[in-house]
Amino acid sequence: MRAVDLIIKKRDGAELAREEIDFLVKGFTSNEIPDYQFSSLLMAIVLRGMTPAETAQLTRAMIESGEVIDLQGVPGPLVDKHSTGGVGDKVSLVLAPLAAACGLRVPMMSGRSLGHTGGTLDKLESIPGYRTDLSPARFREALEKIGFAMIGQSESVVPADRRMYALRDVTGTVESVPLITASIMSKKFAEGAQALLMDVKSGSGAFMKDRREATALARSLVATGAGLGRRVAAMITDMDQPLGRAVGNFIEVRECVDILQGAGPADEVQLIVQEASRMLWLGGLAASPSAGEAPARAALRDGSAWKIFLRNVEFQGGDTAVLLDPRKGPRAPLSKVLTATSDGFVSRVDAHATGIASVILGAGRSRKEDRVFPGVGITLTRSQGDEVKSGDELCRLYAETQAALEEAARLMTEAYAIGAERVPAAPRLLEEITTA
Amino acid sequence: MRAVDLIIKKRDGAELAREEIDFLVKGFTSNEIPDYQFSSLLMAIVLRGMTPAETAQLTRAMIESGEVIDLQGVPGPLVDKHSTGGVGDKVSLVLAPLAAACGLRVPMMSGRSLGHTGGTLDKLESIPGYRTDLSPARFREALEKIGFAMIGQSESVVPADRRMYALRDVTGTVESVPLITASIMSKKFAEGAQALLMDVKSGSGAFMKDRREATALARSLVATGAGLGRRVAAMITDMDQPLGRAVGNFIEVRECVDILQGAGPADEVQLIVQEASRMLWLGGLAASPSAGEAPARAALRDGSAWKIFLRNVEFQGGDTAVLLDPRKGPRAPLSKVLTATSDGFVSRVDAHATGIASVILGAGRSRKEDRVFPGVGITLTRSQGDEVKSGDELCRLYAETQAALEEAARLMTEAYAIGAERVPAAPRLLEEITTA
Repeated sequence: MRAVDLIIKKRDGAELAREEIDFLVKGFTSNEIPDYQFSSLLMAIVLRGMTPAETAQLTRAMIESGEVIDLQGVPGPLVDKHSTGGVGDKVSLVLAPLAAACGLRVPMMSGRSLGHTGGTLDKLESIPGYRTDLSPARFREALEKIGFAMIGQSESVVPADRRMYALRDVTGTVESVPLITASIMSKKFAEGAQALLMDVKSGSGAFMKDRREATALARSLVATGAGLGRRVAAMITDMDQPLGRAVGNFIEVRECVDILQGAGPADEVQLIVQEASRMLWLGGLAASPSAGEAPARAALRDGSAWKIFLRNVEFQGGDTAVLLDPRKGPRAPLSKVLTATSDGFVSRVDAHATGIASVILGAGRSRKEDRVFPGVGITLTRSQGDEVKSGDELCRLYAETQAALEEAARLMTEAYAIGAERVPAAPRLLEEITTA
Repeated sequence: MRAVDLIIKKRDGAELAREEIDFLVKGFTSNEIPDYQFSSLLMAIVLRGMTPAETAQLTRAMIESGEVIDLQGVPGPLVDKHSTGGVGDKVSLVLAPLAAACGLRVPMMSGRSLGHTGGTLDKLESIPGYRTDLSPARFREALEKIGFAMIGQSESVVPADRRMYALRDVTGTVESVPLITASIMSKKFAEGAQALLMDVKSGSGAFMKDRREATALARSLVATGAGLGRRVAAMITDMDQPLGRAVGNFIEVRECVDILQGAGPADEVQLIVQEASRMLWLGGLAASPSAGEAPARAALRDGSAWKIFLRNVEFQGGDTAVLLDPRKGPRAPLSKVLTATSDGFVSRVDAHATGIASVILGAGRSRKEDRVFPGVGITLTRSQGDEVKSGDELCRLYAETQAALEEAARLMTEAYAIGAERVPAAPRLLEEITTA
């Protein structure tokens, strides 16, 4: 087998066989196939696509490129959830303890802030002392004792994905449904999950701005799960507006504490309850995708999810004192309030602009090596559908420097649109894909 | 400017601007843009194509990557010819002295055998002592004194092409009309030609097996010439059957001597005369594409082209004795005659099979580092349209080893098709493209 012949095969639109995909992924990971051949293959995949069978084989080959975390024997269905990333998307922090409270085990491997979107790891690490680099043994222990665990991607799991992503990033080959599918799925199934709920975000604050692209990715994820013999369901959810009222790191943790204590923004609580229910269904603990919503809502109300969250933070080295009294948590030194200049209704808070403003404030990264600040961010006092009078507070910004505060304030002023008519908040759940 | 943004631009089907193409070609040639980015760009070009304007800019940028041979002041129109390669295609060896005999100056930069096709340089070097590595000064001197010169590609001319071709060869990006166009045209115009005749071969023995592909390449070549302000005309010629009766190196030189002495296969003489006429027209020495056919035929008949050929061989260090008495030239130690096993008419001699057989005999290369033998090859005693009786000689093979002789004989037995009805020899000239 020669790499060049397989590149030509894909270039000409043919389907690569299992052993051909193995040859390519193994050759690339072992440096036998040079980057200049693999990048040419990646571009052919971007422009020619991959069949569901090829995507499943690529995912499997990537999983086999490294270690697979062994969770055999952990009691209870192992179900994970992954979001394609959004602004104010703190769902995982509440969903993991909530699903655990309802009887699932959630082995969650998360990422960091990227571009205008936030990262679950950065949010968790805004809790002083919280460690996301658990050993496989401690990861398993957390799942057995507490019901969920949160880790980052280690060097030894799916090394092919790390190498492929670094090459894709500089060769114009990021935007590809099969490549994105294989990247997500390989990491999720290498961490030991048996089933997976995908939250595919669509809208200005998402990576997939176009609804059709989001649907194509969601279908690919579900089909690839089927090809690998795993249950995968996808929800396409709206990301034109930031999710909830908090955008940042510890600012978002505070909102999560509110939700876990039975309060929080209604639209966000609703989405979390819907996601928990789909996870219960995927794990065989609910009879239908929506049948788990009532028990999930109950587990928020009765404090059981909140207790599990506190136990996890303690297990992973975090300081629970800042959760029990959030005023003790990290705070930014500077703040600024934006107010409405006219009467009316908030018709839109642009998610993309809000995400960029939060990166400028230091909550996210524009480059991988950027430092993230735990206390900075934005509180949306008013959001879509809210009535305002001139002079009312729209939002509050928290910053480390005056320059960042001013630049973010300019962006947020433009992010808010005020109209004469009330535009009700759009429903978050746009579409569900549950079978391949 | 960042390479990745330009790769994405081409990937998404947009047109690259002049300065963007310059940035890419200069960056690649100076190693500032790594191979893995350039190969991804090449695959995007293969699958998205290039506009005529982009192809012309790519050609210009490639020419500017190295030295340009300065032929300013050489008297007479400087017109070259290039063939995309075929089996038995020895046209250049006769055409260059013929065009020079008719008043043109022909600065010819040729290549070596590649795959199943022969190479002009290998054929010339089968004349003992013949050198194709002339210095620019000697190249110019030959043009001034004799009217034509034959050289190989040097390191300093169009270095971007050599580097790009090496990368294309291993990344599945050879098959692309704009990339092939730029590769051919950059070399031809860097060697100092003012106008160019392209012989685009189509058929089983050509690189472009498909007629539509050949037409697309021919149109691209002519349009790119126009974009660069150079006169370029293209002839699409048939390569389903080998050209003439000789396939090899010195075997082909012998056939050229026959033609230069006023004899030779009629179909081949006809094609050479047609090509010479198009070159005269491109150089402004004939009123129409076909108006130069009569003077060209006369220059073959009266021996003036033959005299110029002998002077060139002498100038470039070759032994003219083997031309004056070809029995003194290189000969292979082994030979074998294939005979007809039935009565009828030769309906086909497959050009591709004949080309492969000649490579097996040692006349060409399957790998770049293979050695080429001057005396081996095939003489087609019978070709398309000829009547045969059972036992008549079909062809004669010349080899260095018995194993090669047997394997080539098997291939040639299959290359010949004998039918009951006479199939007249197909015309060589299929189509002409003279304006963009």
